[in-house]
Amino acid sequence: MIIMKTDATPEQIDQVVKEVKKYGLRVDISRGQYKTIIGLIGDERKIPFAHLAALPGVQEAFGIEIRYKLISREYSKYYEEVIGRKIIKVGNVEIGGDEPVIIAGPCAVESKEQLFRIAEEVKKAGAHILRGGIFKPRSSVYSFQGLGGEGWEEAVGASRWLQKAGEMFEMPVVTEIRGEAQIDLVAEYADILQIGARNMYNQDLLTKVAQKKKPILFKRHFGASVEEFLSFAEYIAAEGNKDIILCERGIIPIGKGKDYTRYTLDLAAVPAIQKETYLPVIVDPSHATGRRDLIFSMSCAAIAAGANGLMVEAHYNPSEALIDGQQMITPDELKDVIYTCRRINKLVGERKAEATSDEKS
Amino acid sequence: MIIMKTDATPEQIDQVVKEVKKYGLRVDISRGQYKTIIGLIGDERKIPFAHLAALPGVQEAFGIEIRYKLISREYSKYYEEVIGRKIIKVGNVEIGGDEPVIIAGPCAVESKEQLFRIAEEVKKAGAHILRGGIFKPRSSVYSFQGLGGEGWEEAVGASRWLQKAGEMFEMPVVTEIRGEAQIDLVAEYADILQIGARNMYNQDLLTKVAQKKKPILFKRHFGASVEEFLSFAEYIAAEGNKDIILCERGIIPIGKGKDYTRYTLDLAAVPAIQKETYLPVIVDPSHATGRRDLIFSMSCAAIAAGANGLMVEAHYNPSEALIDGQQMITPDELKDVIYTCRRINKLVGERKAEATSDEKS
Amino acid sequence: MIIMKTDATPEQIDQVVKEVKKYGLRVDISRGQYKTIIGLIGDERKIPFAHLAALPGVQEAFGIEIRYKLISREYSKYYEEVIGRKIIKVGNVEIGGDEPVIIAGPCAVESKEQLFRIAEEVKKAGAHILRGGIFKPRSSVYSFQGLGGEGWEEAVGASRWLQKAGEMFEMPVVTEIRGEAQIDLVAEYADILQIGARNMYNQDLLTKVAQKKKPILFKRHFGASVEEFLSFAEYIAAEGNKDIILCERGIIPIGKGKDYTRYTLDLAAVPAIQKETYLPVIVDPSHATGRRDLIFSMSCAAIAAGANGLMVEAHYNPSEALIDGQQMITPDELKDVIYTCRRINKLVGERKAEATSDEKS
Amino acid sequence: MIIMKTDATPEQIDQVVKEVKKYGLRVDISRGQYKTIIGLIGDERKIPFAHLAALPGVQEAFGIEIRYKLISREYSKYYEEVIGRKIIKVGNVEIGGDEPVIIAGPCAVESKEQLFRIAEEVKKAGAHILRGGIFKPRSSVYSFQGLGGEGWEEAVGASRWLQKAGEMFEMPVVTEIRGEAQIDLVAEYADILQIGARNMYNQDLLTKVAQKKKPILFKRHFGASVEEFLSFAEYIAAEGNKDIILCERGIIPIGKGKDYTRYTLDLAAVPAIQKETYLPVIVDPSHATGRRDLIFSMSCAAIAAGANGLMVEAHYNPSEALIDGQQMITPDELKDVIYTCRRINKLVGERKAEATSDEKS
Repeated sequence: MIIMKTDATPEQIDQVVKEVKKYGLRVDISRGQYKTIIGLIGDERKIPFAHLAALPGVQEAFGIEIRYKLISREYSKYYEEVIGRKIIKVGNVEIGGDEPVIIAGPCAVESKEQLFRIAEEVKKAGAHILRGGIFKPRSSVYSFQGLGGEGWEEAVGASRWLQKAGEMFEMPVVTEIRGEAQIDLVAEYADILQIGARNMYNQDLLTKVAQKKKPILFKRHFGASVEEFLSFAEYIAAEGNKDIILCERGIIPIGKGKDYTRYTLDLAAVPAIQKETYLPVIVDPSHATGRRDLIFSMSCAAIAAGANGLMVEAHYNPSEALIDGQQMITPDELKDVIYTCRRINKLVGERKAEATSDEKS
Repeated sequence: MIIMKTDATPEQIDQVVKEVKKYGLRVDISRGQYKTIIGLIGDERKIPFAHLAALPGVQEAFGIEIRYKLISREYSKYYEEVIGRKIIKVGNVEIGGDEPVIIAGPCAVESKEQLFRIAEEVKKAGAHILRGGIFKPRSSVYSFQGLGGEGWEEAVGASRWLQKAGEMFEMPVVTEIRGEAQIDLVAEYADILQIGARNMYNQDLLTKVAQKKKPILFKRHFGASVEEFLSFAEYIAAEGNKDIILCERGIIPIGKGKDYTRYTLDLAAVPAIQKETYLPVIVDPSHATGRRDLIFSMSCAAIAAGANGLMVEAHYNPSEALIDGQQMITPDELKDVIYTCRRINKLVGERKAEATSDEKS
Repeated sequence: MIIMKTDATPEQIDQVVKEVKKYGLRVDISRGQYKTIIGLIGDERKIPFAHLAALPGVQEAFGIEIRYKLISREYSKYYEEVIGRKIIKVGNVEIGGDEPVIIAGPCAVESKEQLFRIAEEVKKAGAHILRGGIFKPRSSVYSFQGLGGEGWEEAVGASRWLQKAGEMFEMPVVTEIRGEAQIDLVAEYADILQIGARNMYNQDLLTKVAQKKKPILFKRHFGASVEEFLSFAEYIAAEGNKDIILCERGIIPIGKGKDYTRYTLDLAAVPAIQKETYLPVIVDPSHATGRRDLIFSMSCAAIAAGANGLMVEAHYNPSEALIDGQQMITPDELKDVIYTCRRINKLVGERKAEATSDEKS
Repeated sequence: MIIMKTDATPEQIDQVVKEVKKYGLRVDISRGQYKTIIGLIGDERKIPFAHLAALPGVQEAFGIEIRYKLISREYSKYYEEVIGRKIIKVGNVEIGGDEPVIIAGPCAVESKEQLFRIAEEVKKAGAHILRGGIFKPRSSVYSFQGLGGEGWEEAVGASRWLQKAGEMFEMPVVTEIRGEAQIDLVAEYADILQIGARNMYNQDLLTKVAQKKKPILFKRHFGASVEEFLSFAEYIAAEGNKDIILCERGIIPIGKGKDYTRYTLDLAAVPAIQKETYLPVIVDPSHATGRRDLIFSMSCAAIAAGANGLMVEAHYNPSEALIDGQQMITPDELKDVIYTCRRINKLVGERKAEATSDEKS
């Protein structure tokens, strides 16, 4: 980290940046009114800090041993203004603000009719953002892989429907990018780019998706610790993209015998992560539990734990869905969830109010 | 399971019971106004059901493949009155009723003064039941093991303080029985007998503690599935003691790297268990998170998930406690927790109201 | 699965294939001298088996519910010749044959000198295949990511060195493909393409790498069950590439407290997998234990468990390596490992001899 | 730890011990020809080391922060003679010596005939120690709990058979103590007292069983880390009983989907534990895999990993056993296992030979 002097000139800043790049590292610049901070991205062991400290305009230069510095509260304390929480604005929706944001929609886009009908109904129920999978990650090559698995034309078609449905019902849309070849297509049509749990460790995908400069919904892998989750989120931030929505969606259950829930929803991770980073954290109770009859309870619990929002699978007729029917709720049930969650959020909200300085993007 | 005819006589019931005992099994009898159900406890493969079905007064006799039948909703459907929820009354406190029950107190009883001061303060904060460890299970023989570890006299003394503190501040008291030799002592002084997580699989202890016929607070082992947890609770019920308070306290965290919480609090287990059994389920956020700064959030989340109560470690000065100081909250913080949890409970309460027929004990 | 009649003509087979493709599925054809089997790849629910069964030349047509059929022993029983074990030939090296194959080399290629010296020394020690990472998957953006992380030129250079070192010391070479953009480069220079543990769930990468038609070294994810591991291997087989070397490299450790090994090496998975599939299974004790002082023991154990080979990190001076120094052994130690492992393999070899019909490729 | 001067008198040693006991701690005394070491057992924070250091005859007095010191190699370095490995002699059998020790027998004692026939056959196959469960820990109250579950008389009878079978076929016998009430009975008839995996955390049972001063076979809990395992073994050593045979028997499998083995056999724990402690470590492949067809492979792997022995369930007719039939092997198969394991042990034995000074008991 390099802290520039208050009177450092733009030229001096440029010189430092150039010097850093010589060693193969990149920079993350935080410019305040008075104070500019240059963060180093890459292997800091290569940097001769004493040399950098001696450059004109530099006040201090030192290494920082932290695996996720760009997204951490700790690191932001060096900034001119500490970041209390980061509010990500997408269209008219604020993620990370006072109200919990509700992302809802079908597991997979199956047809235009299905998508538009669900979009209309979840909008009425109170959802803010529309979800719908086009490229579905599946554990078996013999399962339905989303319309994206049927062919490129189908993928493009489904992407257009999603965009249209978002426009018609005034909701930003989010869908998953499962592989590098899908980045351009999805980034063209979607407002928020999702990286699924199975790809959390996929640093090449993270890096390339981050470069699209659109907000990213980033899911925790089911075998990952919080430390790993944040360390990989840092790959996104390292590309200069800090519009990251972290999503807890359940970890591998332990214990012998049958699983009563598909995954173990790690709700304590929500406040634990929020104490580490200023990024918003949402919860996906649908994939975590795999049980429609637990969605209400776990949605309420997530908001009570301080989550900034929910991602819920919804369908007018869950039993006819091609994937995940057993975990989707109806729009009517969604309405219930939203109503109660908003009231719970208000009750626990005073605590969140402690966070002071916001950063909108 | 043997379903007796409506007009079966007491003698006929006795004869069936005698017959079952011949095969080395025990019985669990549910007597309704019209209908008597005889449950079989033990290895059912030994029972000739056809023979039993032919006895006078017997309507039906058949085996049931369920690992935790006596405590299950499923099984209670055969009863004359299905059990909606079981409310356990201890003194004036109802566990499993409309209000969440709050169990609070120090991790370990350290002195009379410490205990009485905490008892007074948690009572004022709104707690209903007083906790305090005398025999502490510890991972190292080199750690403080509670006053019970200092000698028998100290154990008796601490038990008396606990009883007295409960009387003075009008709270039933709960403390852990860690080994068989402690059963008589603890059962004499405590109102609720706790079986700790490390002893969940200890069927001999479960059986012997159950025979004391006092309510049991039964904690899930950190490596146990919900199925195992309920299967071992059945060992208690099999002794004719169904006053069991189930307690989720966190499971082993997975993932590489440092743990941000001591255990993973499995909150989805709360509604999942409640759908299996009519027994009350409470949550211990103190041991689960091991972090004082997460107790508020996870208490709120637990109640929002539908928990019937909380077990929280509290101390007027956490930093001077001999054990677990980093996870205890102050009575003032406890008051906050209780206040918000009650309001959340009310919000989500309509759902619980669906459960219809209660059984008090 | 469609079983053709003994006298089915090529035209009839073509017609069936065309018919299947109409429904959006692909086929896997096993042609024996007398019997042709057409396997279906994709969502079988779309297929009208009754209709297919009625086509000329078809003897039987039915669906098979198995998540990894193309690589399974079970499925190969339908073939004219059951596959006992699959021997993958790369240059002069046989993987899956009577002798355990030894893959050795540095964790990461760091320089031409380092690579050539290690190549020479591991060859002398008895290694068959040379490994060396160019694109290193890392948990932190602040760590050395391999020469591939320094720039494209460096990546090409390192790939050439690897190829050259393999040629000079007569060993096929293997290196990891971490992202889709690296496929062409690596496939040009390496003999075996590695898909790392973190990418096990990355179906898009699997599919694209498989299409290169080169042998694939496929590592189990540290959070994956054996069932998932094989289900994702099926994604490779579904592209017509069955030259898959499965590699166990340790799963997430469970239990509280510090880890004595980096991961838990799941050696029972080796024979368990071999009973499911005819593919060779090797073990990587270096990443699994993360401890140089355990490599000898766990290599011996792996071969005793029936593994078809080992992948071991070796370096002439482990302490100066940029990555993983604490888990690399010296060429001398490697020689010891190979010597003892060969003798153990012979002892346990009679059992393996039971496997009868081989398939070379 | 208190290191006495070379010329310290017995009276001086006594005085130090008395002083330590004043603070509520106990001692572990290692007397060499020249050097006496007094280890402290209990909460060392209570001890004023400066005061102790000033007592006559004391050379040094200081605290040691290690959770399992009495059984550790590290701590034994302070002794006059470092312990290389501890050989536990039971009858004519040496556990921890050059040859792997084989413990075999039925899962549960079912009848005198069954036990004697199996004893005879496993003896012929080459087993050294006879096992047979009388008090079976079970996950369901509805399962067969061993003859000990049928009544006290049956328990006494089965214990006598076990003793007799051991005498007749010249094998020491081992059986599990599941609860405190069984200690006296089992200690009367068995040569080695087993504490099962489910009781690993049961410090009260450990302490009481240790006091019987018989060798203890101590199994790792399936959710326990190596650190916890050794920390609880220390509870046994703290009673002055260091005749502890550690047993790895598999930990909870992770990953979604069906388990191919009942538990995950953690073989790397064997050498990892042996580097921490001088105690012998054996492996139970039967409970770990739960699969008869994997016993041979995993037995070989265990010995190759350096295990000091095996505990294998065997039955002349596995399919008629009341418990665990699917994981038992026949005496013929056992013979195969023993034959190959001995040869593997010889191959890897040179490494073990490095351990120098032995302690027999």
